[in-house]
Amino acid sequence: MTILIQNCTAITMSTPLVRRGVSIAIAQDKIAKISADPQEFAHQRFDKVIDGTNKLAIPGFVNAHTHLPMVLLRGYADDQNLQRWLEDEIWPAERKLTEEDVYWASLVGIAEMLRSGTTTFSDMYFFMDAVAQAVKESGMRALLSYGIIAPQPGAKADQELKITEAFLKRWHGHASGRIRAAVAPHAPYTCGDEIWRRAKSLAIEYNTIIHTHLQETQTEVDDSLRTFGQTPTERLEALGVFEVPTLAAHGVHLRDSDLEILKRYEVRLAHCPTSNLKLGSGIAAVRKWRQAQLTVGIGTDGAASNNNLDMLEETRLAALLAKLNDPTALPASDALEMATCGGARALGWDDLGVLEEGRKADIVLVEMQGVQWVPGFNPVSDLVYAATSADVETVIVDGQILMERREIQSFDEERAKAKVRQLRAKYQKQQ
Amino acid sequence: MTILIQNCTAITMSTPLVRRGVSIAIAQDKIAKISADPQEFAHQRFDKVIDGTNKLAIPGFVNAHTHLPMVLLRGYADDQNLQRWLEDEIWPAERKLTEEDVYWASLVGIAEMLRSGTTTFSDMYFFMDAVAQAVKESGMRALLSYGIIAPQPGAKADQELKITEAFLKRWHGHASGRIRAAVAPHAPYTCGDEIWRRAKSLAIEYNTIIHTHLQETQTEVDDSLRTFGQTPTERLEALGVFEVPTLAAHGVHLRDSDLEILKRYEVRLAHCPTSNLKLGSGIAAVRKWRQAQLTVGIGTDGAASNNNLDMLEETRLAALLAKLNDPTALPASDALEMATCGGARALGWDDLGVLEEGRKADIVLVEMQGVQWVPGFNPVSDLVYAATSADVETVIVDGQILMERREIQSFDEERAKAKVRQLRAKYQKQQ
Repeated sequence: MTILIQNCTAITMSTPLVRRGVSIAIAQDKIAKISADPQEFAHQRFDKVIDGTNKLAIPGFVNAHTHLPMVLLRGYADDQNLQRWLEDEIWPAERKLTEEDVYWASLVGIAEMLRSGTTTFSDMYFFMDAVAQAVKESGMRALLSYGIIAPQPGAKADQELKITEAFLKRWHGHASGRIRAAVAPHAPYTCGDEIWRRAKSLAIEYNTIIHTHLQETQTEVDDSLRTFGQTPTERLEALGVFEVPTLAAHGVHLRDSDLEILKRYEVRLAHCPTSNLKLGSGIAAVRKWRQAQLTVGIGTDGAASNNNLDMLEETRLAALLAKLNDPTALPASDALEMATCGGARALGWDDLGVLEEGRKADIVLVEMQGVQWVPGFNPVSDLVYAATSADVETVIVDGQILMERREIQSFDEERAKAKVRQLRAKYQKQQ
Repeated sequence: MTILIQNCTAITMSTPLVRRGVSIAIAQDKIAKISADPQEFAHQRFDKVIDGTNKLAIPGFVNAHTHLPMVLLRGYADDQNLQRWLEDEIWPAERKLTEEDVYWASLVGIAEMLRSGTTTFSDMYFFMDAVAQAVKESGMRALLSYGIIAPQPGAKADQELKITEAFLKRWHGHASGRIRAAVAPHAPYTCGDEIWRRAKSLAIEYNTIIHTHLQETQTEVDDSLRTFGQTPTERLEALGVFEVPTLAAHGVHLRDSDLEILKRYEVRLAHCPTSNLKLGSGIAAVRKWRQAQLTVGIGTDGAASNNNLDMLEETRLAALLAKLNDPTALPASDALEMATCGGARALGWDDLGVLEEGRKADIVLVEMQGVQWVPGFNPVSDLVYAATSADVETVIVDGQILMERREIQSFDEERAKAKVRQLRAKYQKQQ
C-alpha cells in the first residue's frame, strides 16, 4: 500500500526538528520520501491520500515498559501501600486471569494506546500468547516478554524458562516482523542466580534482549544488599547478565556506582514517572541518566498503577518532574526524544522513532485545532505541555492505517470494551 | 430555565460520595433536587432534559489561581530560568498587550476551561475589564482581581489602588452575581507595606477577599528575610493583612512556622503543581497543609507556565506528587475535593463545589464511554487517574448550559481562536 500525507507539520526527531508544509510518502512499511516541494508528488499515484493541513506528524510513541493486560485491573485498587496493594489486591485478582480475559484486555489496551498515539510497546506479563494474538490482529508493533518468576532452581524454574522459549519460538520476528520477543526475568529479587544465567543464554540463542525491573524501590536495594552484599545492578553485572542488551524499567533507586555499571554495558532504561509516583517509589534521576548518555525511554507501566496508557501524559510528566530544581532541565524536545526514538533504541528497534526516509512508517497525526493549541507559537511545546491525547487523529503502523479520524480500523474496539466491562463482575471484590 | 439530567452517576463531594442512577433537577441557578427515584420527576415538565446515561455528573472544577489572558503567551517561551523567562520573555511581551488582545485571549481561555470542566476561576492580571467582559458574555463564573504592583508609595501606587477600586465598583457582584472582584496585591515582594495596608482597607470596604502570591520560590523567602527580617508570611501577619480572608497562591516554600500563622488566620491556599514544577520552584507540601486543616484549592496558574488550563490534569498531578514517599497520601477523592469544594471555599464561594440541593447549579457531565474508562470499577479513580479532559461533554454554570455535547453555546469560540492566532504575528519574537 502507498499513502501520501499532504501538507503537514512534522516533528521529525531528526534535523531540522520541525518541518512545516511537508508531505510524507509511505510505500509498504517504510517512509519513502519527505518533501516540502508541492510538485514532488504531483505525478505519483497513491492508494490513499491524507490531508495533513493543521495536523502534526510525529513518530509514534514507544511505550518502553508496560503490562498491557492490567487494563483489566484499572481502578481496581488505588492509593495503597505497595506491599498491601500487591498481596491483598493485585495478586489475588491476577490468579483469576485466563487466556481469554488477557486477550480482550490486550485489545482494549491496544485501542487505548493507539488513541493516544503509541505505535510500539514493550510488555511483560503472562498468558503472552493471548497478548501476541491481540498484537498480531490489531496491526500494533510490540516487544513482548513472558515475566519469569523463579527464585529457586527446580521444576517451577524449568517451567518458566520453557514457557519463555516456546514463546520466543512462536512469536519472535513474526507478524511481518511487528512482533519481537524478549527474555524477561521479572526482577533481581524474584529470580535466582541460575535463572538469570539461563535467561541470558536464551537471549543470546534467540538473538534478543533482556527486559526486567531494576531498583524500583529502596526496599529492593536494601534487601539485595542484605542478601547478596551487592545492589541488584552489581549482582546482575557479576552474573554477566549485562553482556546481553538489557532494558531495565524504573531505576528510581540507582546509586551513582550503579549508573557507572549501566553506562559501561549500555543498559537501556525505561522511565515510568506516573507509576513511580503513584506507588510512592519516588522520582528517577532522569537528567543524570541522560547526562551519562544512557539510552532512556518512557513507559506507562501497567494501568493498575498509572491508571492509563497515555504516553503524551507520561512525556509531559517526565519533562515536568525533571525540572524539580531547574526549569532548564529536560526541555520539551528532549522529553519527546525519550518518548519516541529514545524508546525505540531502548527496545533495540533502531528503525523506529524518527521521521526520515527509510525508517519504518509508524506515524501519528495529531490535530492542532483544539483550543489548547492556540495561539500556536511552538508545536513541540504545544504537544508536550498543552495538548491532550484526544488530539491524536490518525495512526499508521508499519505502513498500515490502524486508526483514521479517531476510528480504530483493524479490530472491533467496542466489542473488546464490552467484553472487558463484562469481566468486571468476575473480578469485583466482595464488599 | 429548568433542566433535568436523567439517570447519571454523580460524584457529589458530599455523602454518599458516589450515587448511581440519579437524576438532577435544576431550577434557575440552583440544584432543586437530586433523586434516585425514577418516578420523582415523572410528572414535572422541564425546559430541557439531558440524558445522563453513561455520564458522570461532577461539581464543576474551581481553578483557584490563574492568569487567564496568558493563553496568548502559551508556548511563547519555555524551559528557562525564572528570572530570564520573566525579564527577557514574558514582561517584554506583556508590554505589547492591549485591552482588546486581553479580551480575545480571555475568551479562548474560557473556552479551554469549559472544555476541561472548569466552571469557576480565580484570576489576577491587568486589563481586567476586558477579562470581566469576557466572563460576563461567556456565562462563566469568576473571582477577578487586578494585580497591584507597587513597591513604593506614590503616584504609581495611588494609580494601582484607583484601578482596583474602580474595578471593584464596576464588577463586584455583577453579571447576576457570577462575577466577584478581589483585591490583589501581586506579592509581598512587589508591594510595599503601605500598599498592603490600603489593600486590606479596600477589601474590608468592599467586603471581599485578598488574592496574592506567597512564597513561590526560595529566593523570595531569602530576600524577605534579608530586607525585613521576616518571612513574607510573617510580614503580612505583622501588617494585619490576614485579618481579611486571604487566598494565597503557591506556598511552595512555606516554613512550618508560616503554616502555623496561615492556620491561625484561616488563610486559604491555591496549589499550582504544574507551574511549580515547570518553573523549577519545587513541590508544595500539600499533605501537610491538609493535615493542618487548611483550606486548599488547586490552580493551573497561567498558560505561559503550565501550558494549559486543564484542571483534570492538575488534579491528577496533585494526587500523584503528594505520594512522593507514601502511596496512601492524597487519595483520588481528596484530590477531587481540592479541585471542587476545596477551591470553592478557598475563593469564599461556599455555595459552589458540591452537588446537593440548594447549591449553585455548576455541573459538569463527563462521558464514561472512552476506552480509558474500561472496565469501570471506580468512577472517582477513573476520573482522577485515567480520564482525559476531552471526556467532558456538557457544562452548566449558574443553571445555564454553556457547553453541550462539546459545542460552546454562549459565544463564538472559533472566532476567538482565530483572533488569538492572528495575534501571534504581533507577539512573535524577532529571530
